[in-house]
Amino acid sequence: MKAMIVAGALALPAFGEGPLDLAKVRATDPVALGWMAGMPVPPQKQIRFDDGSFYRFPQWRWTFSHWRELRPTIAVPRGAGPVRPLPSALRQDLDAVTFVPTGGTAPVTWADSLIANYTDGIVVLHRGRIVYERYLGALVGDQPHVAFSVTKSFVGTLAAMLVGEGKLDRGAAVTRYLPELAGSGFDATVAQVLDMTTALDYVENYTGESKTTNAYRYATGFMPRPADHSGPKAIYAFLPTVAKKGTHGEEFHYRTPNVDVAAWLMSRVTGKAPAALLSERIWSRLGAEDDAYLQVDADGTPLMGSSLNARLRDLARFGEMMRRGGEWGGQQVVPSAVVDEIRRGADKKAFVAGGYATLPGWSYHDFWWVSHDDHGVYMARGIHGQAIYIDPKAEMVIARFASHPLAGNVNIDPLSLPAYRAIAERLMAQPK
Amino acid sequence: MKAMIVAGALALPAFGEGPLDLAKVRATDPVALGWMAGMPVPPQKQIRFDDGSFYRFPQWRWTFSHWRELRPTIAVPRGAGPVRPLPSALRQDLDAVTFVPTGGTAPVTWADSLIANYTDGIVVLHRGRIVYERYLGALVGDQPHVAFSVTKSFVGTLAAMLVGEGKLDRGAAVTRYLPELAGSGFDATVAQVLDMTTALDYVENYTGESKTTNAYRYATGFMPRPADHSGPKAIYAFLPTVAKKGTHGEEFHYRTPNVDVAAWLMSRVTGKAPAALLSERIWSRLGAEDDAYLQVDADGTPLMGSSLNARLRDLARFGEMMRRGGEWGGQQVVPSAVVDEIRRGADKKAFVAGGYATLPGWSYHDFWWVSHDDHGVYMARGIHGQAIYIDPKAEMVIARFASHPLAGNVNIDPLSLPAYRAIAERLMAQPK
Repeated sequence: MKAMIVAGALALPAFGEGPLDLAKVRATDPVALGWMAGMPVPPQKQIRFDDGSFYRFPQWRWTFSHWRELRPTIAVPRGAGPVRPLPSALRQDLDAVTFVPTGGTAPVTWADSLIANYTDGIVVLHRGRIVYERYLGALVGDQPHVAFSVTKSFVGTLAAMLVGEGKLDRGAAVTRYLPELAGSGFDATVAQVLDMTTALDYVENYTGESKTTNAYRYATGFMPRPADHSGPKAIYAFLPTVAKKGTHGEEFHYRTPNVDVAAWLMSRVTGKAPAALLSERIWSRLGAEDDAYLQVDADGTPLMGSSLNARLRDLARFGEMMRRGGEWGGQQVVPSAVVDEIRRGADKKAFVAGGYATLPGWSYHDFWWVSHDDHGVYMARGIHGQAIYIDPKAEMVIARFASHPLAGNVNIDPLSLPAYRAIAERLMAQPK
Repeated sequence: MKAMIVAGALALPAFGEGPLDLAKVRATDPVALGWMAGMPVPPQKQIRFDDGSFYRFPQWRWTFSHWRELRPTIAVPRGAGPVRPLPSALRQDLDAVTFVPTGGTAPVTWADSLIANYTDGIVVLHRGRIVYERYLGALVGDQPHVAFSVTKSFVGTLAAMLVGEGKLDRGAAVTRYLPELAGSGFDATVAQVLDMTTALDYVENYTGESKTTNAYRYATGFMPRPADHSGPKAIYAFLPTVAKKGTHGEEFHYRTPNVDVAAWLMSRVTGKAPAALLSERIWSRLGAEDDAYLQVDADGTPLMGSSLNARLRDLARFGEMMRRGGEWGGQQVVPSAVVDEIRRGADKKAFVAGGYATLPGWSYHDFWWVSHDDHGVYMARGIHGQAIYIDPKAEMVIARFASHPLAGNVNIDPLSLPAYRAIAERLMAQPK
């Protein structure tokens, strides 16, 4: 994703030029700031959807842990089965692990990097055991937090499962399943949608400067609609309005509506609504601690590109299931061939062609980010620092929630990717 | 409650003049009607908050089982403990139990009465075992449904607990705890609030004809605000605007804002938000199957007078705990003295003085309806037929969700109260 400064003049620490400015971050602590606290809440502490304050920094450090209190949602039930415990083997040595941020020269510690990167919560699993767990900001462990585009990787996994079952054909035209999209920019293949190589007249930009992103957000209900809004007011009403621009299959461009098309495809071929499908196929089979939930649009259609809210440890369970090749608790939740397919990644040239030079050598496949590095790392990534980081070689999974002031992971990666790698190397060198 | 016809000319069957018109009820089945079904949902099947269609009949037969998909909510966590099973001892004989509706002459069966009274779900416990359980309409057993004013009885129970602990004084002025209410109509005692004998310039009426009820609903977010709305936009902003009319302590008048004052009192003296308090003191101690949830206003304050959504069997667990004098699963969830206090009821004369002649001999105490009958029945009651009916003598608890076209229980009681009594008598005469 390209850098997009949302919150004004919030310069990141200049890595290598001095110590991280942790005081600046701590000054945005949502609990200390008293957002939405008080009976009644004083006007200067109020956070609202209608006036857009819910999605301003530093207010969103509160918002991201309280999504359902602002928007309509639907449950993704965990089912009636027992919670599958994550055994604990906490390590005191990890806080002091040091690494050099990308583009920097001076080493920083893991502990400081978490604060500097506006982490709300982080769980590190090694060989399935919790070796590190910490909550900051407004988050506590038994509460959900928005996962933003990490949601997409759940959709991609489900879609790949349906491909494996023969219910969806990667080579087929999207319109074979969704004639509603005839004449739209989605005259592409299923594979092109899942890898986001569709060529659409759509600019993904969260600063309010993109007419197409704004139209999408007004349609989905992610942002309050202007009084004179006359465009679509639901996801399935919006998608047919997206036009084509260019040639499908050549360049990767990160455009969220592809995920809504994928979710629509899945619902069409299974006859099941997305939340029910996600629960039935994945969430209810994780031994999750809690239901997850999704924001819904006016039709009750969930925002499958951005709106999963869940407990962090449950995201970690999902990551660990993937790391184990889809097996979890004695059952094959996701076929191992599907996990292999996701890990294989996609066309690196399309990734570069789309301008994603900040993740050299990576690709994007089935709504997963694939590093193609020597550890075989692949990730689910969401704006403001949400992540599931799977390192098969280190047998490590990291799940992270954050409320970074900047919306682009390009601003967050310099402190997070080398940190994750440093922890992986420590765990490999000194397994407990 | 007085009869308030919300849905136009929907005449009830004239009891005693012929068989119940079950076909008319079945014609409003929300699943058969396809509300909010389809991808996309066709315009004629859409249900929306903004246009008010969510609260029209027959649409609300869908709405009541899908509340969180329309409005912002907060969880009432069930906690991490195990589910406390309700043992099953289903009886086939109950469907054929007959009774004569109030004001009627011809007997009807229990089974027919459930349909005729727009039941969405019903559970009957006898000595703690499920002897009857049935779901209709849009509800399934593992989904929540709005409980409406049944919510009030949870607040009253909590308030009575805090009175018992000395944290709240029934005789104290409300303004001792809530100086924000000085100068408002709530210059009453805590006891008057809990028994709804405050004298307020407030007319509870759900037809849109009461300015005060409308102002309350716009403030809470229960109803969409008109474009020119300039009144309060949050519960704690609304309550100080309620004026006094008459003399406190003389007449019972069913006015929901009393409950919001009680919830505010509880939060003030405990320092805990209502959802957290309800979870900590009651919901997390029931062995509930699921979290409950509450709608919240713009400040995140839950609508404690109307908005609890829960699974029916969890409401039954709460009722059974009360029937057992507050003991449940080996722990005293509610002190037995609090249960005794609630069952004692309040001033029957105040009840009559308020015009509630349709429930002769009853009273209203701590937001519970107390029958003072020979079985010691007391109830939590919500509009459109929600109920927890506790019959100590018959060792029976009934929990019921419904989506009746009329908002007043006076329209529902003729088919429900004698039905509950008939089942109680059958269970006493033929215990399993």
